[in-house]
Amino acid sequence: MSLFILLDYASVLVFALTGALVASRAQLDIVGFCFLASLAAVGGGTLRDVLLDRNPVFWLENPIYLGVACGAAVLVFFTAHLLESRYRVLLWLDAFALAIAVAAGSGVAQSLDQSAPVVIVMGIITGSMGGLMRDVVSNEVPLVLKQGELYVTCAFAGSAATVLASQIDLSPAIVAIACASVTFILRAGSLAFGWKLPAYKSRPPSA
Amino acid sequence: MSLFILLDYASVLVFALTGALVASRAQLDIVGFCFLASLAAVGGGTLRDVLLDRNPVFWLENPIYLGVACGAAVLVFFTAHLLESRYRVLLWLDAFALAIAVAAGSGVAQSLDQSAPVVIVMGIITGSMGGLMRDVVSNEVPLVLKQGELYVTCAFAGSAATVLASQIDLSPAIVAIACASVTFILRAGSLAFGWKLPAYKSRPPSA
Amino acid sequence: MSLFILLDYASVLVFALTGALVASRAQLDIVGFCFLASLAAVGGGTLRDVLLDRNPVFWLENPIYLGVACGAAVLVFFTAHLLESRYRVLLWLDAFALAIAVAAGSGVAQSLDQSAPVVIVMGIITGSMGGLMRDVVSNEVPLVLKQGELYVTCAFAGSAATVLASQIDLSPAIVAIACASVTFILRAGSLAFGWKLPAYKSRPPSA
Repeated sequence: MSLFILLDYASVLVFALTGALVASRAQLDIVGFCFLASLAAVGGGTLRDVLLDRNPVFWLENPIYLGVACGAAVLVFFTAHLLESRYRVLLWLDAFALAIAVAAGSGVAQSLDQSAPVVIVMGIITGSMGGLMRDVVSNEVPLVLKQGELYVTCAFAGSAATVLASQIDLSPAIVAIACASVTFILRAGSLAFGWKLPAYKSRPPSA
Repeated sequence: MSLFILLDYASVLVFALTGALVASRAQLDIVGFCFLASLAAVGGGTLRDVLLDRNPVFWLENPIYLGVACGAAVLVFFTAHLLESRYRVLLWLDAFALAIAVAAGSGVAQSLDQSAPVVIVMGIITGSMGGLMRDVVSNEVPLVLKQGELYVTCAFAGSAATVLASQIDLSPAIVAIACASVTFILRAGSLAFGWKLPAYKSRPPSA
Repeated sequence: MSLFILLDYASVLVFALTGALVASRAQLDIVGFCFLASLAAVGGGTLRDVLLDRNPVFWLENPIYLGVACGAAVLVFFTAHLLESRYRVLLWLDAFALAIAVAAGSGVAQSLDQSAPVVIVMGIITGSMGGLMRDVVSNEVPLVLKQGELYVTCAFAGSAATVLASQIDLSPAIVAIACASVTFILRAGSLAFGWKLPAYKSRPPSA
């Protein structure tokens, strides 16, 4: 169990950094930084816990998660002006947070003996919903829905890796590493090399 | 109970089609289609189940719902370019999904012996919240809030029909048909003939 | 317990008025007024109850809350044209609702013997999330995130007042009054006198 707690902490920390960066783009004050950082940090995991009826929700049981999120927010508040491209940093931190959170979400569902589809969906929800809430609330185009990029696809592939790796009786730590690696590599490839799936086109190429 | 399961399947299928059509308007890839289709398909029913503390949430118990949603997404991905007006089809499918989902939501609440106001609210939530999530996430103007159209009103009337029809001891299937019919006819009348309620005007007509 | 029920009623009433005012700005019909009023009115408390696993959610147990919200919506529908500046009234009603809801949210969490951070977060959630849902759904800039104003800060300070006042063994009613007063005074100072915290600036003043 402590593995998933570690993953939850790591994803809270990194998602909080992304929330704070979005707050810096919106020129909020320090409390606004803490608010957006916390929303991004615990949003996905909270939805996972509510849907799986895990009680109490992870950060209610242990409010240090919120301390971590606010600490990250304060750090960004005082240092973000040192960054050359906040949006670029935001994208890469978000990729990192996505990878960890997908591993945390799919791993927790797996440890609760959920079926494979539920494990996959919980990985996707935990990975993408905190960032989605962050983006919807702050009126940014949700990363989840940006054209010409892989995002939900990465979360899907990572969660599928969790399901597959669990079949062959690997230790939970190895499963989590496999899941996070698959997720991160796909997302990084999309950011760095423009990997993408074909998008829907309203008019097909004329034959 | 199987009646409500059938209604849940039907509303998942049709709402998924609407989610996928919205995804086609945003030119997403196939995973994005599945994501938006699933969000629209299970969003309202999930909120209903969380609020009523039904455990597990309907699609966690039976992930085939997600398979239905993704199947609908794939279908739309490959065929939507055949449609002449995707928005028109979207509106009519949404009307159909609304009618089914209102019947499912109010029927489930009724079967749990909830009070009449709760039955009505659960009908409205199940019917309109999946579409609302779809529209907020994809940054479309929510159908729920479009001026000069009936939408929540239809869900309200349909749910009220459920409450009334249940008073006179009709079978649940008849109640569901009555509810869906009232909802659909009002919404269809609004789409086809411009039925509407008077909107708020900031300046009353001069006397 | 009856104190918190009273606070819940008061915050439902005043938040419903704000939701209806937003509906008037969007020129919705009377059912749209009731929808937005109810969303603003019960959104924050619903999230509080779902997170704290309080069953049933407060307005499911007692649907009169929804009656209050719809009554407020109808009142605004027929009288809002008498107001000179609906936005100004909206801001002040929202400040009032925020103060009451923070007291309700932090007080309920306190009465459930939650830890201090949870009490603070529940105050913030109950106070700000209903208004946030109202603003996101109706595509207004969320008050929570407006630059150069105190908002979450007020909720934070009010909730902290709840925690502090509870330490010194005051009666729950006094604690609630202290919390609401701190919240309202800060918010009112921000609206009337422009009180604010320093915002993040991407470029620090040159030394």
